[in-house]
Parts: sequence; C-alpha cells; structure tokens
Amino acid sequence: MADIWQSAMDHAVAIARKAGEVVREALRDDRKVMTKSSSVDLVTQTDQRVEQLIIQSVKEKFPTHKFIGEESVAAGEACDLTDSPTWIIDPIDGTTNFVHSFPFVAVSIGFSVNNQTEFGVVYSCLEDKMFTARRGKGAFCNGEPLQVSDQEDIKQSIIATEFGSNRDPEAVDKIFSSLRNILCIPVHGVRSAGTAAINMCLVASGCVEAYYEIGIHVWDVAAGSLIVSEAGGVLMDVEGGEVDLMSRRIVAANSRTIAERIVKEIESFSLPRDDAPTKH
Amino acid sequence: MADIWQSAMDHAVAIARKAGEVVREALRDDRKVMTKSSSVDLVTQTDQRVEQLIIQSVKEKFPTHKFIGEESVAAGEACDLTDSPTWIIDPIDGTTNFVHSFPFVAVSIGFSVNNQTEFGVVYSCLEDKMFTARRGKGAFCNGEPLQVSDQEDIKQSIIATEFGSNRDPEAVDKIFSSLRNILCIPVHGVRSAGTAAINMCLVASGCVEAYYEIGIHVWDVAAGSLIVSEAGGVLMDVEGGEVDLMSRRIVAANSRTIAERIVKEIESFSLPRDDAPTKH
Repeated sequence: MADIWQSAMDHAVAIARKAGEVVREALRDDRKVMTKSSSVDLVTQTDQRVEQLIIQSVKEKFPTHKFIGEESVAAGEACDLTDSPTWIIDPIDGTTNFVHSFPFVAVSIGFSVNNQTEFGVVYSCLEDKMFTARRGKGAFCNGEPLQVSDQEDIKQSIIATEFGSNRDPEAVDKIFSSLRNILCIPVHGVRSAGTAAINMCLVASGCVEAYYEIGIHVWDVAAGSLIVSEAGGVLMDVEGGEVDLMSRRIVAANSRTIAERIVKEIESFSLPRDDAPTKH
Repeated sequence: MADIWQSAMDHAVAIARKAGEVVREALRDDRKVMTKSSSVDLVTQTDQRVEQLIIQSVKEKFPTHKFIGEESVAAGEACDLTDSPTWIIDPIDGTTNFVHSFPFVAVSIGFSVNNQTEFGVVYSCLEDKMFTARRGKGAFCNGEPLQVSDQEDIKQSIIATEFGSNRDPEAVDKIFSSLRNILCIPVHGVRSAGTAAINMCLVASGCVEAYYEIGIHVWDVAAGSLIVSEAGGVLMDVEGGEVDLMSRRIVAANSRTIAERIVKEIESFSLPRDDAPTKH
C-alpha cells in the first residue's frame, strides 16, 4: 500500500528548508540594523512570517488540513488535536537563540492524524541539519539513519534540560531541585541547547541520553517526539506515566531504564494545558 | 616591525586543523567499535595522541619553546608560566562531549611569552570553525572578524556556564546558588555547551553575553581569553578582581557592566591552583 502521507511529508521537508532559509536571511540581513529595542520585533516578525509561509503553502496543497501554530495560538486560535490531519508548527524553536545567533535554531513541523503523529520534521537551520521521521519507518538526519545511544548506565549519561522562561519562585525551586538531584546521581554532564526540538534530536542522534522539561508546548515537541521514538527512544511523562503532548511536560530518553531513573529525581509540577479551553 | 610570533601562530592554526581531523576521525572510526567500558580509553588515547601530535610538531619547529598540556600535566609535568615562550594546549576541550559526539568539541592552543598571551587558537572540530586571535590585532572566526554583543542590559542577556565535574556538596551548593541568582535577575537564558573554549568563543561571537565558571584549568581558557578580549570583551575573576588564568576561575563577558553584574551574584570558592607546587 502506498504511504498516503508521503506527499505531505515531502512537502513538510521542502517547506521547512525554505523556512530555514528565511530564518538564516533574517539573521544575516536584519541583525545588521537590529538595535537592542527592536530585537523583540525581529523575532515576532520572523516568527509570524515563517509560520504564514508554512501555513499558506500547506493550505494550497492540502486545503482541508488543520493547523496548530505557535503564533496562531498566540493570536487566539484554537489548540486542539482532533482526528483531522493537523500540522503542528513551531516556526522558530529557540527564539532566544535566534535573537542572539546562538547556533541552535529550528523549524519544527509535526503532522498528526487521529491523534497520532504520522511524521515529524525538525530543520536545524544554522547547522543545516534536516531531521525527519515517518511513523514506523525510522528517523534520519540529512538522510542518514538515526539511532539513540545504547548507554544504560545513568552515570555515563549526558542529560539535556532547560531552565525555560518561568521565573515563578515555586517553579524555579522545583526546576533547580530536580536538576541538582539528577546532577548528583551523578550523571556525566548536563547540557542546555536552548531548544526543545533540537534537544530531542540530540537524544535521537545519541549525543545525549535524555532530555526532560516542564513548560514546553505541543509545537515544540510534536515533531521531535516522533524523531526520538523512531530512533529507538522512549517518551514518558515527568511522573512516569504515558506522555501527553498537550500537558506541557516531557521526558525523552534512549531507553526505559534511563527515563525511569530520571523520573525518580524530577520534582514535577503542572501548568495550564495547551488545549485548556480557558486559556484565551 | 615584523610580527615575530606570526610564524608560530600560523603553525598553531595548521596543527589545530590537523588535530581536529584526528579528533573527527576518532569519532567516525572508533565509535563504531566503542563499547561502554572502552569509551574512557578512547578519550584518553585520542587526548594523548592529539597532544603528542601538537607538541612534537611544535618541538621540531621551535625547539626551545616550553609546553603546558592537559595530558602532560596529568602525567606529572610542571604547570608553570615562565617568561619563556610557552604553548598551552588542551588537545580535546569537551571530552564528555567527545565521548557522546555532542557537537561542541575543541582543540585549544594558547601561546604565552613573558606571562602575556600572544595568540590563541580554538578549533571547533565538529562545526569546522577556526577561532583565532593575535594580541592587538583582533579576533576572527574562519577569517571573519569577531565582535562581542553590544547588549548591556543583563535582562536581555544569555549567560553560559557549566556544572563541571565537581560533585562536592559544598561546591554544588554554591554552583546552584550562583546560577539561581543569575537566572532570577532575570536573564534571558542560560546555556551549557560543555566546553570552556567554545563558551568563550560564543562570547567573542556575540552569541552569549557572558560565560563564567569555577573549576576550569589554564589550558581550557588560555586561548579563549585572548579571543574574548580581542573581540572587545572583558575578563574578570569571579570575585571581580583581575583574572588569573592559574586560579581555576573566570568570568568572560561582552562588557564590564555585564561582568560586574554577574560577579555580584556568584558565590565564589577556591580550588587548588593549576601552578600549586604540591599538586602532584
């Protein structure tokens, strides 16, 4: 049987590459004229421009498909995963990195049907690495197959996480306690790349054994989650149950052993869900 | 007047590139046969091999020059900065990254005469970025001039730091307190790349406003320090005084304003100096 979503995935790869070019151009051209006060505008403009570029091109080709986009949701649109084919878009994952030209900036496109991710595309624009996964068919970077690390000893593992933008003292307490617990297991090291999508690709590539975070959104992790699981990895909630992409929290690891070991050390907390009806 | 150290610097760039090739080859070839238990051996072997490659080639060309190398010091050689021309070598900065193929791995070569760094070369092997600085002549990446960020608002800044390998509870307390203080200023973000040399190049490139760490060694920061200052940045001790490359601690920032603001939040501590006579 032909893969009915292959043409959509091909389109996602092509448009992610085009979006990445826009991001790179914005950094090259606009940074020259960017003042301190205008940097926020550059982000917003480029974010919106890239999201519209993706949505418009998809709409022309697949007029019945739905969208969840970071910028569209910020503008008040619904954030619901239905059974309809839905494109889940983060036009720039790592906006802080983008403002600073820190080398990890990604375009993330996930595609869900019947509440199941069918494919995921993460384009790390500044590294020029195209990460892709199709459900049941493996994960790839620039066409080369990806495989998670086979390290099952937590003490030999690198863990990626982020401090995020939450500065609520209670949340910061838990973020720091969790990180300290994990560091002192002890692990081999802790890294922060500044983007959920690329952190997940680092898990899929075997460069880090696990990534966890509380505070992410569905558009940050929809594509990356499939890339991790198709590379042989495991997804979990920070309390150890099944992962829920709308719940704002995730553990992505090379194995169940490592994921469960990390979960033991995380002091979890809850945030308003992405699909909470009262959110806007 | 001709620059008397230019030929030494040219040699450093050539040998750093060659060393980077060895590192990349080791990752490509040896990782295939690497088992969990042999990963430490791979690091040690490649570290020693690269350091010997650099030292041998320098000795042939500059037979009177002295050396401070991470591996040589580990093997019991002296770690003294005299007035003699001295090559300060970290064959692989980011050994944990190296083991995991995490994309930041650097060869670092500093060159000091009369206790002053004359040039610094940091080759980020996996990114293929060659960072160079000659005292008084600016800093460059792949030949393009580098300039630190002009951001003087700490709240718009990204700060790089590392958790390091120290798991002594008192040190970990201070590392976490400092980081929490800085995060909650609040800053724009915190990143950990896993190598001091590349963190310093990120400051020089304007991608992060500052980097600080307690626990580094002179070979981690000798080259990077000059790259930062030649890109317009500032070096400082974590208590605010003048930086001392043997003291195991450093703040590198885009400006005095940002450096002094960070110093206020750091809970400092001391470690045995690199040039302590009782160290070995």
